[in-house]
Amino acid sequence: MPDASPATTESIPTPALVVESSVLDANLAAMDSMLPGDRLRPHVKAFKSTDLARRLSNDGHRGFCCATPREVEGLVAAGLGDDVLLANESLDVARLGALADEALITVAIDSEATLDAAIAGGVRSVLIDVEVGLPRCGCDVDDAGRLADRARNAGLEVRGVMGYEGHLMMVMDPDEKADKVGSSMELLLRAAGDVGGDIVSGGGTGTCITNTWCTEIQAGSYTLLDTDYAKLDLPFDIALGVLATVISVNPKGWIVADAGIKSMAMDHGNPSWEHGDVFFLSDEHITLAPHDLSEWSVGDIIRLQPAHIDPTIAKHENLWLVDGERVTDRWAVDLRHW
Amino acid sequence: MPDASPATTESIPTPALVVESSVLDANLAAMDSMLPGDRLRPHVKAFKSTDLARRLSNDGHRGFCCATPREVEGLVAAGLGDDVLLANESLDVARLGALADEALITVAIDSEATLDAAIAGGVRSVLIDVEVGLPRCGCDVDDAGRLADRARNAGLEVRGVMGYEGHLMMVMDPDEKADKVGSSMELLLRAAGDVGGDIVSGGGTGTCITNTWCTEIQAGSYTLLDTDYAKLDLPFDIALGVLATVISVNPKGWIVADAGIKSMAMDHGNPSWEHGDVFFLSDEHITLAPHDLSEWSVGDIIRLQPAHIDPTIAKHENLWLVDGERVTDRWAVDLRHW
Repeated sequence: MPDASPATTESIPTPALVVESSVLDANLAAMDSMLPGDRLRPHVKAFKSTDLARRLSNDGHRGFCCATPREVEGLVAAGLGDDVLLANESLDVARLGALADEALITVAIDSEATLDAAIAGGVRSVLIDVEVGLPRCGCDVDDAGRLADRARNAGLEVRGVMGYEGHLMMVMDPDEKADKVGSSMELLLRAAGDVGGDIVSGGGTGTCITNTWCTEIQAGSYTLLDTDYAKLDLPFDIALGVLATVISVNPKGWIVADAGIKSMAMDHGNPSWEHGDVFFLSDEHITLAPHDLSEWSVGDIIRLQPAHIDPTIAKHENLWLVDGERVTDRWAVDLRHW
Repeated sequence: MPDASPATTESIPTPALVVESSVLDANLAAMDSMLPGDRLRPHVKAFKSTDLARRLSNDGHRGFCCATPREVEGLVAAGLGDDVLLANESLDVARLGALADEALITVAIDSEATLDAAIAGGVRSVLIDVEVGLPRCGCDVDDAGRLADRARNAGLEVRGVMGYEGHLMMVMDPDEKADKVGSSMELLLRAAGDVGGDIVSGGGTGTCITNTWCTEIQAGSYTLLDTDYAKLDLPFDIALGVLATVISVNPKGWIVADAGIKSMAMDHGNPSWEHGDVFFLSDEHITLAPHDLSEWSVGDIIRLQPAHIDPTIAKHENLWLVDGERVTDRWAVDLRHW
């Protein structure tokens, strides 16, 4: 990190993540109009930055969702511990129990073993995580009530249920999506009846419009968006870019920039570039075929759009906020690792 | 990071990288017998750890290869700056020129612009990077001599050439591989004739046996190997594993562990698991279909084999050295970022 803040994108060391502030602002405003305040529980796994979390908290979203104990700890340390949910199973929860006097921390459980870990670790509040069709965590819908009873008998507060319909995020047709999300949420509401409590938590960026059954939606990617979620008909635009420097121009028809697999996640495919085709990525390189090769020189700065923001951001230490070429702020990606 | 060092793999926080020491030892010995001392210029981009680099230096490989300025700086700071090559084009080389009094740093150039940056940045030694078939960096073979002359006229030492036949790493048939690598290296040797100097640098783990034309081979992945390189007939085995904790067991036939896309690179496909099939990965989860579900419980520790070590290691802060279940050491992944 340079000591002096770069004034323009030309002086940011590459590869680097940039956030177009006006697009971020519009994404947050669009979500606020649909899901104000506690109707949204922003998922910090998408962006892993307490600076962005603080912005969301100031906008009225005071409850947060986390995927790792580290994210919970970081939010609490940043004074954002009003209502933090670890929306994931973990046996490493004694570190969260240790924070129970200074923050409201709720942990998802889906088994005797994860409940035992929560009890032993001093966790005070849980949600019962129910499997609603995604083959991942979550108990059987018919087991939720029994787990809730056991948790209450052990002195824990059971605040309700959660269930993530992650397998339905990318269903394109709105009617098909509504049908399938409805069936998923029917299971979750049945579990909620057995469990009690006020919270029915679920959803994500891909179902934030469709899922009208949950009391709160767990979305995070909408803030910065990626080319994958941009395929859906959502009121959000891509705010995140990967800045790279052109380091080689080959007259045979390609250019090479200094952003590769170590700075962009590949699980949703190649990033996109508005000025040409992406040929392939190596560890520290991207080879691009520009529409017009003559326009490009070594030293030029390019901006790429990643296909999946969550694991892309987790590779970086900073998010540079920009207004076009002007750098306005830097947010640390301070919730990385586990 | 816990203060006390874990004694066994059971007490390492997951997800985590483990290195089976005996396999690492055997890999290093196998390479040493083929390419001793300066015949190998280990590529630290594969493992990004000065601890492992120091081990290689102690074994007689005192020259290193880097992909980023950060890797060069880290090696120099660790006292491993006898002969460090930035085997990549960069315009951000003044930070390396600033180290020229304390280390021998050589930078690859392939254009007027990258040569100008080296001159302006106080870099003293260069290699001419030649394109030998991989559509990435490297000048045209017929341009190498001219760039070398210009560099020498500016007072720089031109130590020779490099050319990376990365497109041939995964050719399976040995005869076809020898033919193709030979054609690639014919170009590089032609450039070497025009350029002068002692060094002809190239190759990688996939061609370390085949490439008999280079004076030194730039291999790094052989140290820890991955499932991709393991497909080739090489005298190396997989030493790197990703340790994960089972957090959910579903009677429908799957288990979930706490290692996902944020802890394993996906560009070469899914990781492998010896006890069953990999169903899919999410940001922080892997869903697995075990051969025998009844063998698995929440809290079990599993070991996965990643498909591509370089970007997998770059996601982590530590490499835990193990002898089976016993933890013997911890190496920091201290050369991350740029």
